[in-house]
Amino acid sequence: MSRGADPGLLDLASSLVAVPSVSHHEQALADVVEGALRAWPWLEVERVGDNVVARTRLGRSHRVLLGGHLDTVPASGGNEVPRVDDGTLYGVGAVDMKGGVAVFLHLAGRLPEPALDVTWCFYAGEEVEQKFNGLRRLWEERPDLLAADAAILGEPTGGVVEAGCQGTMRIRIGLEGARAHTARPHTGRNAIHRLAPLLVTVDGYRGRRPVLDGCEYVEQLQIVEVSGGVSPNVVPDHASILLNHRFAPDRLAEEAEASIRGLLGRYLDEGDHWELVDVSAGAPPSLDHPVLARLVAATGSPPKAKQGWTDVASFWAHGVPAANFGPGDPLLAHTQGEHVGSDELERAAEVLGALLEVGR
Amino acid sequence: MSRGADPGLLDLASSLVAVPSVSHHEQALADVVEGALRAWPWLEVERVGDNVVARTRLGRSHRVLLGGHLDTVPASGGNEVPRVDDGTLYGVGAVDMKGGVAVFLHLAGRLPEPALDVTWCFYAGEEVEQKFNGLRRLWEERPDLLAADAAILGEPTGGVVEAGCQGTMRIRIGLEGARAHTARPHTGRNAIHRLAPLLVTVDGYRGRRPVLDGCEYVEQLQIVEVSGGVSPNVVPDHASILLNHRFAPDRLAEEAEASIRGLLGRYLDEGDHWELVDVSAGAPPSLDHPVLARLVAATGSPPKAKQGWTDVASFWAHGVPAANFGPGDPLLAHTQGEHVGSDELERAAEVLGALLEVGR
Repeated sequence: MSRGADPGLLDLASSLVAVPSVSHHEQALADVVEGALRAWPWLEVERVGDNVVARTRLGRSHRVLLGGHLDTVPASGGNEVPRVDDGTLYGVGAVDMKGGVAVFLHLAGRLPEPALDVTWCFYAGEEVEQKFNGLRRLWEERPDLLAADAAILGEPTGGVVEAGCQGTMRIRIGLEGARAHTARPHTGRNAIHRLAPLLVTVDGYRGRRPVLDGCEYVEQLQIVEVSGGVSPNVVPDHASILLNHRFAPDRLAEEAEASIRGLLGRYLDEGDHWELVDVSAGAPPSLDHPVLARLVAATGSPPKAKQGWTDVASFWAHGVPAANFGPGDPLLAHTQGEHVGSDELERAAEVLGALLEVGR
Repeated sequence: MSRGADPGLLDLASSLVAVPSVSHHEQALADVVEGALRAWPWLEVERVGDNVVARTRLGRSHRVLLGGHLDTVPASGGNEVPRVDDGTLYGVGAVDMKGGVAVFLHLAGRLPEPALDVTWCFYAGEEVEQKFNGLRRLWEERPDLLAADAAILGEPTGGVVEAGCQGTMRIRIGLEGARAHTARPHTGRNAIHRLAPLLVTVDGYRGRRPVLDGCEYVEQLQIVEVSGGVSPNVVPDHASILLNHRFAPDRLAEEAEASIRGLLGRYLDEGDHWELVDVSAGAPPSLDHPVLARLVAATGSPPKAKQGWTDVASFWAHGVPAANFGPGDPLLAHTQGEHVGSDELERAAEVLGALLEVGR
């Protein structure tokens, strides 16, 4: 598969990048996608807000949903204009994830009779707060549109399956002290100094690495914010840290929080503050599901664990096993120079095409 | 010396509290003080802004300056209205330092022929940034008004001499890291985690305790501010702390900074940031000066070291040995319930009166 072998797929991705669709402004791109899908008579197309769902109705024994978000992070450094150079597409959303959307549209138009019934789902609001997420709206208003035996999210995964996803939670810890003049600190208690053993413990944290369905999840604990201080002559009476904990999908959120509490709780006194700010459960790899197992086989590569959180968890929460698979390097997501190669797009189309045509 | 023995001194202090004089708004109180001083013909009175200086001109062999600031911190909890209860005056500035100002005014009007020439100096802007300090303005515009062999600042010291003062400096340390997704922290470097050994070291700091002229200075190191953080899913690439170091007057500022650098410098890498934000040198006790030695003797108590920074250092920087002595508990300064007793005022007047009348 050499660069430039299928300029059509790269051109399609480029034309999608050319339609700006920063979060909350997906309408124009949703119009383009809806128009393309309605041109194919084998698809039943529905639109809910700026979310577009197109389904085959072939009565196959299995239905797979292929999902991709339409929105991008804000453009930066002029990357709102797509640029193709030597078989590579540059521009905001090129890798996250208009490349994947292009692959989906390409296949939707070329597979009138896939071996599995297919639901193509393009949705808005993935890059912003959960409450704006188009999938969430569909689950609330039209769950029938999302019914499937398995789901594949087309986020960039470097062309291998990234299975399941880890959960994520944020915990805020506030430590109290007592104000004093800094020339007489022993009449007070410095709340910032009290952070010392927590920072040492978190810095020394080595997470569990459970292997599920052959995928190694690596748990993480990071301080993502620290603050404290009253004025330059005052021993501070309050300090706080915000923690982000990534936990493997073999653990419930409650177990994960308890493990962090077990690690850090010893440094809290009465009057101190522990708050679970938010939590999103993960999803197990579910690679024993025949559709997902077939996807892995089609890639020809061993699957990896998804270390971050994705909408795979949203499907799992509704009883639908799901995995991540899409073109492009995930480390390029949200970078100014994000790009995707035509060979990556073609390889992803080939893998998904093989999955959907198997047994036909 | 029983409570209520001299209601005049307590009433005088109360009348001073009744004239609001929060920093930057000292004019009304300066008018009151100037008016009182001009009533006494043995004083030569000059005014520079809201700073009032009154001097005897008796040709004595020594001149002592007694200095007190007119401004207060902002009122809180209704303490802008003075209240006298059972021989105690409550109200903003009662202890810091209208009690001391009352003692000075009381003595200025009762000692037409003191044994030492006296300069009574009342100044504005002590509770705010140095650039607003009235003494600083006088040193610049009328240093002749501040000429003296020794100076006594009437800040509350609990009726004993608090000798000299420690220096103070602020140092900001910024540590760098590299951003990464919190699900893949090993592709970055967490700058907040890098603070851990600095917090441990500062928390474990035990300062020098040099004894000068019988006064023990206790050096201190406190973190007064900490900050860092980018967003909840991002390994932060920057974190910083602000340190306040109090150093004994036997050390130059350069030596003091070098000692902190020796303690913490090992945790800084190339690209990290070390900034001496500001520094104010201290002042040695100078208790071998005959005027200050006589003051100590008049109190009948051993002197203590002044652990905080005061304008004593401003006099020392201009070659004038100085000490702190005034009525009231220094720990009450800047508290909502600050108060001073009539017995404390009378005792301070008695000590200073003895000093100024000795040998007459």
